Amino acid sequence: MTSTLTTTPAGDGFRMPAEFEPHAGCWMLWPERPDNWREGAVRAQRAFCAVAAAIAQFEPVSVGASAAQYEFARAQLPAAVRVIELSSNDAWMRDVGPTFVVNDRGERRGVDWRFNAWGGLESGLYFPWDADDLVARKVLEIEGCDRYRAPFVMEGGAVHVDGEGTALVTEQCLLRGNRNPGAARADIEAGLCAYLGVRTVIWLGEGVCNDETDGHIDNLACFVRPGVIALTWADDPRDAQAMISRDALARLMAARDARGRRFEVHKLPSPGPLTMTASEARGVQSRTGTQPRRAGRRLAASYVNFYIANGGVVVPLLDERTDRTALVRLRRLFPGRKVVGVPGREILLGGGNIHCITQQVPAPARPPRG
Amino acid sequence: MTSTLTTTPAGDGFRMPAEFEPHAGCWMLWPERPDNWREGAVRAQRAFCAVAAAIAQFEPVSVGASAAQYEFARAQLPAAVRVIELSSNDAWMRDVGPTFVVNDRGERRGVDWRFNAWGGLESGLYFPWDADDLVARKVLEIEGCDRYRAPFVMEGGAVHVDGEGTALVTEQCLLRGNRNPGAARADIEAGLCAYLGVRTVIWLGEGVCNDETDGHIDNLACFVRPGVIALTWADDPRDAQAMISRDALARLMAARDARGRRFEVHKLPSPGPLTMTASEARGVQSRTGTQPRRAGRRLAASYVNFYIANGGVVVPLLDERTDRTALVRLRRLFPGRKVVGVPGREILLGGGNIHCITQQVPAPARPPRG
Repeated sequence: MTSTLTTTPAGDGFRMPAEFEPHAGCWMLWPERPDNWREGAVRAQRAFCAVAAAIAQFEPVSVGASAAQYEFARAQLPAAVRVIELSSNDAWMRDVGPTFVVNDRGERRGVDWRFNAWGGLESGLYFPWDADDLVARKVLEIEGCDRYRAPFVMEGGAVHVDGEGTALVTEQCLLRGNRNPGAARADIEAGLCAYLGVRTVIWLGEGVCNDETDGHIDNLACFVRPGVIALTWADDPRDAQAMISRDALARLMAARDARGRRFEVHKLPSPGPLTMTASEARGVQSRTGTQPRRAGRRLAASYVNFYIANGGVVVPLLDERTDRTALVRLRRLFPGRKVVGVPGREILLGGGNIHCITQQVPAPARPPRG
Repeated sequence: MTSTLTTTPAGDGFRMPAEFEPHAGCWMLWPERPDNWREGAVRAQRAFCAVAAAIAQFEPVSVGASAAQYEFARAQLPAAVRVIELSSNDAWMRDVGPTFVVNDRGERRGVDWRFNAWGGLESGLYFPWDADDLVARKVLEIEGCDRYRAPFVMEGGAVHVDGEGTALVTEQCLLRGNRNPGAARADIEAGLCAYLGVRTVIWLGEGVCNDETDGHIDNLACFVRPGVIALTWADDPRDAQAMISRDALARLMAARDARGRRFEVHKLPSPGPLTMTASEARGVQSRTGTQPRRAGRRLAASYVNFYIANGGVVVPLLDERTDRTALVRLRRLFPGRKVVGVPGREILLGGGNIHCITQQVPAPARPPRG
């Protein structure tokens, strides 16, 4: 039995745990739309399968697939992965799925953000997004979790938390005004505090170069553990990414987290710059209402877009020139976890990467012994 | 993690528990097809809601609804009912859902019967049935149960078990040849023994008069407990049902169950005869490939088509002249349970009743203490 609550997580004593805290499992969606994924999505489907298989080494994985794709998805995905009929407009579970919150009594609930396809009718990426906006609710019904329906538009990829009261966001995404027109910085902060159970919101500026989500934080920087952050980094001053990363670093060095700590920031190399090839762009069916995919356009590639699983880290492989360095650095950053690389280019062509297509279900906190 | 097994339940030490054994919950589907349910299914939806609400008093209920109907179903059904996106060709969870089997070590699996819409292309009730045939698999993924894919066509409503080795079926349904052409009585028995974990199959003759499922047992007779059977009964010798019920009684009196017991048979009054009115028939949209609904046709009404829940029995109310007698007799037959009547005519108009639209999930047996 699940209910829709009219209170807020913070008011009820709930908080979003950090991704590096223990998980009960992971949810994903199955890509299929031919106007975003080239060649009828078959290559993306293979890439998603590899991600699901990699995560399934560490924790249970559920993948939602449309009725039309169900049988094929079931046949392609490893037996260890649970396949659930679940319709969506595309396959970005990070952004359309619920954000889970827990309290210290072992209870788990979900936040169902309003969703407008990263910007609505004016600047969103496709229309309609009605099925996407129901995904979180459907997942919460299956997970048996009560639901908070947030009164504002937000995506899971637009925020990272350290689980100890701090949220990390970007101004580019949250202040652009195409999600919540008229909402000021203070309104956004109040919403995040109420629905994520945080006390401190740290604002970076722009997200990764050309990120079509309007610069989601989860492609730019993330928490490795409380007080420790990984940041995508370009050295070459002619690369537009270099200035973005420098600005982010400066803000992080000046910031304090909710517990008053300064941040230790670790750099991950920015791949490329990578661009979409003519052959890749040709494989995408153009369609009115969906943003076009154009040859030569720079892709928003970033190693920061990894998923932290129980005992593991699943990282996109993006560029032979930088993959090894990224893996070496991540292994150093996550000494207790197995760091696994999975080819990420096909996911990148669709506009995101491994973090964008996954959503963790935290393990409920162990209730204190009575 | 769920797997498709190539062994059989009986071979693996599994059996189908009787419906009167403890449940973990109940699954249903949401009706919507306007060529079977009058007035765009709105009346049937209300009736299904009442059934779901009645069962939810006793045990958790999950209702599968198509993507198109999801929001409306969620809004109509009580909050206590879990709503899951799940497509189907109609709404008969008894027949398209899995038949759960358990062993005595606390494990639970599911049998996924082949399904051909009660008779396939020649005498089935609609075309296509592709979504129906995936329902059991999808439910098993959600329930996290391993799956046996039966190598023959069967429906959950075509068989009742006492949980102690006995199955009850009808010749009309299983020997007609529109499910498994060429299969002899002995082949069917072998299949039931292998997939339900029974040793004795008791054959009644015909099912309820005009039952479009080809006379499913679950509309004619059922187990109240081991050795005790409820049978629909018409006294009037001019009623075609009278001869059918007399034949069933004679066969039951001559039979012995798997443990060698004779049966105690209790009669439930046959309602009516009830027929479809012109106004009811007019509300159904006719469509090629779907059997027509005709005014004046006798409905296969039966009080035996009830659902046994944990501590409850949910019974269709069908005819003011007989409802009270049926409820009184059922209360006597189920002294430990609350017997609840729910209006059943709208479900009957679609071709079945409460038992046909439900499927229990047995509680796993308590494993023996190590």
